[in-house]
Amino acid sequence: MSAAVQDYIAANRDRFLEELKSLLRIPSVSADPAYKSAMTEAAGFVHQQLARLGFRSEIVPTAGHPIVYAEWLNQPGAPTVLVYGHYDVQPPDPLDLWTTPPFEPTVRDGQLFARGATDDKGQFYTHLKSVEAWLAVTGSLPVNVKFVIEGEEEVGGANLDKFLEDRKQQLACDVAVVSDTSQYAPGVPAITYGLRGIIACEVTLTGPRKDLHSGVFGGSVTNPVNALCQLIARLHDADGHVQIPGFYDGVQALTDEERRQWQELPFDEAAYRQELGVDVCAGEAGFTTLERRWGRPTCDVNGMFGGYTGVGPKTIVPSKATAKITCRLVPTQDPQAVTRNLEQFLRQHCPAGVQLKFTDFHGCPAFVFDPDSPYIAAAKSAIQTGFGVEPVLIREGGSIPVVSNFRETLGVDTLLLGWGQNTDNLHSPDEHFSLDAFQRGIASSAALWQKISELK
Amino acid sequence: MSAAVQDYIAANRDRFLEELKSLLRIPSVSADPAYKSAMTEAAGFVHQQLARLGFRSEIVPTAGHPIVYAEWLNQPGAPTVLVYGHYDVQPPDPLDLWTTPPFEPTVRDGQLFARGATDDKGQFYTHLKSVEAWLAVTGSLPVNVKFVIEGEEEVGGANLDKFLEDRKQQLACDVAVVSDTSQYAPGVPAITYGLRGIIACEVTLTGPRKDLHSGVFGGSVTNPVNALCQLIARLHDADGHVQIPGFYDGVQALTDEERRQWQELPFDEAAYRQELGVDVCAGEAGFTTLERRWGRPTCDVNGMFGGYTGVGPKTIVPSKATAKITCRLVPTQDPQAVTRNLEQFLRQHCPAGVQLKFTDFHGCPAFVFDPDSPYIAAAKSAIQTGFGVEPVLIREGGSIPVVSNFRETLGVDTLLLGWGQNTDNLHSPDEHFSLDAFQRGIASSAALWQKISELK
Repeated sequence: MSAAVQDYIAANRDRFLEELKSLLRIPSVSADPAYKSAMTEAAGFVHQQLARLGFRSEIVPTAGHPIVYAEWLNQPGAPTVLVYGHYDVQPPDPLDLWTTPPFEPTVRDGQLFARGATDDKGQFYTHLKSVEAWLAVTGSLPVNVKFVIEGEEEVGGANLDKFLEDRKQQLACDVAVVSDTSQYAPGVPAITYGLRGIIACEVTLTGPRKDLHSGVFGGSVTNPVNALCQLIARLHDADGHVQIPGFYDGVQALTDEERRQWQELPFDEAAYRQELGVDVCAGEAGFTTLERRWGRPTCDVNGMFGGYTGVGPKTIVPSKATAKITCRLVPTQDPQAVTRNLEQFLRQHCPAGVQLKFTDFHGCPAFVFDPDSPYIAAAKSAIQTGFGVEPVLIREGGSIPVVSNFRETLGVDTLLLGWGQNTDNLHSPDEHFSLDAFQRGIASSAALWQKISELK
Repeated sequence: MSAAVQDYIAANRDRFLEELKSLLRIPSVSADPAYKSAMTEAAGFVHQQLARLGFRSEIVPTAGHPIVYAEWLNQPGAPTVLVYGHYDVQPPDPLDLWTTPPFEPTVRDGQLFARGATDDKGQFYTHLKSVEAWLAVTGSLPVNVKFVIEGEEEVGGANLDKFLEDRKQQLACDVAVVSDTSQYAPGVPAITYGLRGIIACEVTLTGPRKDLHSGVFGGSVTNPVNALCQLIARLHDADGHVQIPGFYDGVQALTDEERRQWQELPFDEAAYRQELGVDVCAGEAGFTTLERRWGRPTCDVNGMFGGYTGVGPKTIVPSKATAKITCRLVPTQDPQAVTRNLEQFLRQHCPAGVQLKFTDFHGCPAFVFDPDSPYIAAAKSAIQTGFGVEPVLIREGGSIPVVSNFRETLGVDTLLLGWGQNTDNLHSPDEHFSLDAFQRGIASSAALWQKISELK
């Protein structure tokens, strides 16, 4: 029966791609209110696809962007799987660095280029196509499946939390599945058993009520840009250690076993540097590049602006300066404590003559999955089917806030099955997703439903 | 004869204002190539005005924006005065902070609002109207007058230097006159006997070749924004002293007499703070606010940008970060040495993993005029005529590069006769110029020609 499902997936390859392109043409940028109608359109697209397959599907309004919820529960006694994905995407700028426009999906060299191709439209869509294949071929699914496809993953809205809390009973399940991570490398599929957490905030310093002539007034007032630079510079010492008091509270040291396993993974640092275009890797002293990415917390400015940003010079003392900051967290740092400590640290060191405004965007703790779970075994086997090789077990530097929520609210663990690559330019210009990975992801997903059904 | 000239100035008040408005409607922003045609138009406007008065006027092309040169030399044996001004203006942004559009001159409460109203169109235009008055009433001028009205003051182009060098013989004069400074306060006209110099530059750090996902890659590469903040933070110590090696080389200590005189000037620091909208004044330890503005060097960031600057969060490690920096200089700091030392300081402390690009925009040394010169006496008397009170002698924090050039190339000193106010929002939204100051400036200028003619 599974073989017939796999045949169906192979036979419908081109149509699946065209459907994904239709979804990618919708510019569903959640961060920017200008794209609001595209958000509605993208939610509608996902809802209609699931409804047509026979899922009981609904578009759930929230205070922000809507959530698509759909369920198929016609296999009583079988395990229930909750699939999570997000239809929103990162802002596409800087637009001039895209080879082809971000919302005109284009295939080049076996890769599909578009904003959202790998993060996360192309990835979550594999699970829609795998259930389509089962239903088309067998008229049924081997497990019960619930889909939660949200629209605020990239902006960390609180609306999903409320939805999970409100629908706690309805969302009950045995395990969650999320495809929003990466393979370890091309040809080396992976199950991600750990994620970093995150906190995100924005700090604005306001000095004089308007930009001032830097000659007439310069030297007599605190310059908000210079002041913000001083605050940002204080965040790290010369060895790259974060200086926020209490920042490392709860940080679990990496085990010798973990460090040894990561050391054994194929990792070509010279190729990594070349890919990123940097002459050296750099970061917290005493850790390898993989350890810095997967197992250590960070504090990065994501964007900063203040004063004149046009062509040529402008001789002003700026009125304002703003920095957007994220910290990546590891188990068991407390996001709220880190945010509170960061704000307090900034306020404590803020020079006289400027006012500090702190905006807390969102946060979630880090996550580590038990690698001995039978669900991990089922996923290993399914990926072996789809990709032809056994996956490696890795951790990941990114954050998927919902994974923590699933544990807290629904009491379930999450299988992180990433079909993409780190080099897919997620959050960057020329984001792309391999056509081969798209196809193998669908095949793995189809196999996963069977493997999980065999656990009970 | 002078009384008839003053009567003419009073009788033509409204027409002078309308003509100035026509000049202010031309958006002659020199920094931005998008305004190139407006630059040509503004130069043509000034040229035609002077040609109609009987000046031998020409528009002199340069490698950048043109210079208007005009001369009236029909008073053999009388002194020759060179009047300098600039028809270019600062960029008008941020546009949303203007009450009325920057290039639609509007009168409110006796003030004329427009970009360039006080810096410098409204100020240099007083000298065009004073020579018009003399020529209309007497058919002659008491002195020979040469006008140099350039278009690159706000961008510090090298083209004026070349023009001065090329035309050295033709520009020969006894004294230069520039109205591009401020009165000390409303009702307290001033002669500015000192100016700060300036250097301006831009520094860009480039890390990864594109923006990276801050989760996947964060912690393993140098973040260019964090790195630039570290460099900027190093520029000052906790007491506001600039840390660039050699920065204070040549800085003349303020004399006790100078500090005493400045202490006696009416200066209401509480009102100053309120005007600027800051709760405290701040700057180099050990100096008063006037001393910091007039007699001490500075290092200010004028603008900074890198990474995501839109709405909401974006979880990236930016590829680039840029800061625009100016240092204000005092006698006898060497601009080239300061620029060289700043670049070297930045390169020396630049962290591994980013490339540093340094762009030197322009520079000029500070200037101090001899307060015992007979020209200062002539100017005092002329201002007494126009404003009804004797002016105070002050220094100024801004820079007028051409003043140094006049001394170096033409061997003459410059009378800095400012009709504006510090609070005219020069370089800021809602720039304005007092209608009363405009009129009194024309009257003072007309009297100045007579006073200077009596010196020989």
